[in-house]
Amino acid sequence: MLVRRSCPVCTISRPLRPFLSCRILRKYIATNFLGRANLMTQVCIIGAGPAGLLLGHLLRAEGVDCVVLERRTPDYVLSRIRAGVLERVTVELMERLGLDQRLKAEGLAHDGFNLADGERLIRIDMQELVGQHVVVYGQTELTRDLMDAREERGLEVIYETEDVTLHDVESDSPHVTYVKDGKEHRVDARFIVGCDGFYGPSRKAIPASVGQEFERAYPFGWLGILADVPPCNHELIYANHARGFALASQRSSTRSRYYVDVPLTDKVEDWSDDRLWDELAARLGPEAAAHMTRGPALEKSIAPLRSFVFAPMRHGSLMLCGDSAHIVPPTGAKGLNLAASDVHYAADALIRFFQKNDNDAVSAYSDTALSRVWKSERFSWSLTKLMHRFPEDGDFERKMQVAELDYIASSRAAQTSIAENYVGLPV
Amino acid sequence: MLVRRSCPVCTISRPLRPFLSCRILRKYIATNFLGRANLMTQVCIIGAGPAGLLLGHLLRAEGVDCVVLERRTPDYVLSRIRAGVLERVTVELMERLGLDQRLKAEGLAHDGFNLADGERLIRIDMQELVGQHVVVYGQTELTRDLMDAREERGLEVIYETEDVTLHDVESDSPHVTYVKDGKEHRVDARFIVGCDGFYGPSRKAIPASVGQEFERAYPFGWLGILADVPPCNHELIYANHARGFALASQRSSTRSRYYVDVPLTDKVEDWSDDRLWDELAARLGPEAAAHMTRGPALEKSIAPLRSFVFAPMRHGSLMLCGDSAHIVPPTGAKGLNLAASDVHYAADALIRFFQKNDNDAVSAYSDTALSRVWKSERFSWSLTKLMHRFPEDGDFERKMQVAELDYIASSRAAQTSIAENYVGLPV
Repeated sequence: MLVRRSCPVCTISRPLRPFLSCRILRKYIATNFLGRANLMTQVCIIGAGPAGLLLGHLLRAEGVDCVVLERRTPDYVLSRIRAGVLERVTVELMERLGLDQRLKAEGLAHDGFNLADGERLIRIDMQELVGQHVVVYGQTELTRDLMDAREERGLEVIYETEDVTLHDVESDSPHVTYVKDGKEHRVDARFIVGCDGFYGPSRKAIPASVGQEFERAYPFGWLGILADVPPCNHELIYANHARGFALASQRSSTRSRYYVDVPLTDKVEDWSDDRLWDELAARLGPEAAAHMTRGPALEKSIAPLRSFVFAPMRHGSLMLCGDSAHIVPPTGAKGLNLAASDVHYAADALIRFFQKNDNDAVSAYSDTALSRVWKSERFSWSLTKLMHRFPEDGDFERKMQVAELDYIASSRAAQTSIAENYVGLPV
Repeated sequence: MLVRRSCPVCTISRPLRPFLSCRILRKYIATNFLGRANLMTQVCIIGAGPAGLLLGHLLRAEGVDCVVLERRTPDYVLSRIRAGVLERVTVELMERLGLDQRLKAEGLAHDGFNLADGERLIRIDMQELVGQHVVVYGQTELTRDLMDAREERGLEVIYETEDVTLHDVESDSPHVTYVKDGKEHRVDARFIVGCDGFYGPSRKAIPASVGQEFERAYPFGWLGILADVPPCNHELIYANHARGFALASQRSSTRSRYYVDVPLTDKVEDWSDDRLWDELAARLGPEAAAHMTRGPALEKSIAPLRSFVFAPMRHGSLMLCGDSAHIVPPTGAKGLNLAASDVHYAADALIRFFQKNDNDAVSAYSDTALSRVWKSERFSWSLTKLMHRFPEDGDFERKMQVAELDYIASSRAAQTSIAENYVGLPV
């Protein structure tokens, strides 16, 4: 009888000498015989935004070997202004990592948020309706917490990696090549996880014949302004005004984030700070305007709105997490949280794979993640449709918006449905 | 000091001799001096479908004088096959009239209904979720009960009235002319109520400058078949199948009503009974098909789907009820029930007017009725969008349907929202 042993690198169980029959190891030895200082790891993560860092920390905490490759510098990553509303799934991952001290201290628990239509505020009382809240804490802050813990937790992140290219993703011994400081490098791994956003190389490594893209574009973008002024309201206000959409959001009690929707043809230069504050005051209504403090823009930019899903989210040894697989319009603040729930599923699947030699959760990863992705896509799409004026919509569609807001204002069931989606559906 | 008295016809309070200063009465006397046998009444109702008959009975029960004019014969009215699901508001009006004996005896209480997507049934348990049910009882039967009670209740309905024309609706002494048996007749009244459906003359009597139409057409119609066979399921099934929409409905335990959606270019002649039964079996899925009994069509017809609202629903002394003011797509069975809630508001307003000389509810009628109309329009529109395949929709929109059904299947709040709309929002 043959003795079967598992390889510590790829976990594949083979008769006798499993270690030497490991294809990953053999490729590694072969390429290093050529004189290069390459890496061998269990999981190569592409992208050191919040998704990649969260996944890296979760894997390291369970003893899974990984390395993270990031195209940009740490400062560049931290300079990207993104979302600021965390669902429970995101907060719980930070808790699980023990990296939630600052989030707990500085994050603002929001028990409710508001839908406005120019005449009234409809408050969705999440705490009362579903017993949960969201936490306002900038994505930038969360990324910083994860970055600061790299050294202590032994998470290796290689920044400024150019020309990242994925190879052999359909095999069980894929590898990644990249250029750093003018030299080509290579990482051999059992798995590659793409956390590299919509424009990264990971999704593109899946052949077009295998994947399907689902997409909807919207006929407007969000013009956002970040300013060090106190918020006009202690909770968020999403407004559907005759002049267009507006969102009063915040990052802290002294830093506000506001948005209006603008035609895709508008440029940031078209919008002076004054013009933008005036527009916000008009769209958010007199009550909010009276409490709005104006200030110079720390950042001002226009982002197009898009719904996008790529399926499947796993192909061979490549898994996709977050924006690399899907984009939601920002209405409802699902983007970062959806990346976190992907990471939750991916980390559990990979840990089971390496700790228990159990491939089931890896096999199921795409279906598991997509089930929640589609529901979040639906919520973001429907809240976007409810709260924006679409150029193609006629009077009837506008009346449907008003009727839906009237119905929501009058129905606990409707408010509960919105609340449970906003705090995040169960993982 | 002048003594003010109210005229018993128009309720207008005038100094001295109110009766002789009543313009309605004076017009009546004037026209009858010319040798005609005209009518004078407090409310002239146009249309003797369920809305007109319900309103007439409600007014008569409170001593308000009225007459109903109907273009067709009684048999023709009873031959129209319409809806068959009654909300509480409709049942309660029949109870209030004491005309609910047969409805109670023969109506089927449905505690739930089902959404199907080709793979599963999602049951919406209305009784468990919102403590209410709907009653399956054909509109034809309800109309028959109201017709049968005309004589006993002293409700005058004049059938076969041609060329019904409304006059002076902006004044407080409007009148209606019509031709019957070749002679012109006239009804003078304080109010006219249009219960004459989408194509009737009432809405058209409101000047275009006053009213606004909101409309959405759908790119398909419903092909319906009525047959004396037992239903395939004890509750209704709305199916969104790859081949299209299907509805398994019923009028009783021995009479079934089924629908499929078809392109607007299809004709009834294109659909033999066999072809239609085959299509139903495919779209409703194997479980329903296994229990489906086929039988010859008692009636087979194609009805286009339309969302339509006319506002305001009152202009001067003319009030609109039911299809004369609004049309819903049949998904959700709101048409008859919305007419009933209009009648509920209109009857109460007119009774207050004539009994208490109080004009407030008449003045508020349009806003009161429209508030509920728009919410029902929204529900019918959204259920139509969820359960049909639209030719213009792409893969993303289809995925949104699947995601919404997945979400509904998993969420008590979402099911509660659907249930409370299906049983009927509060009046």
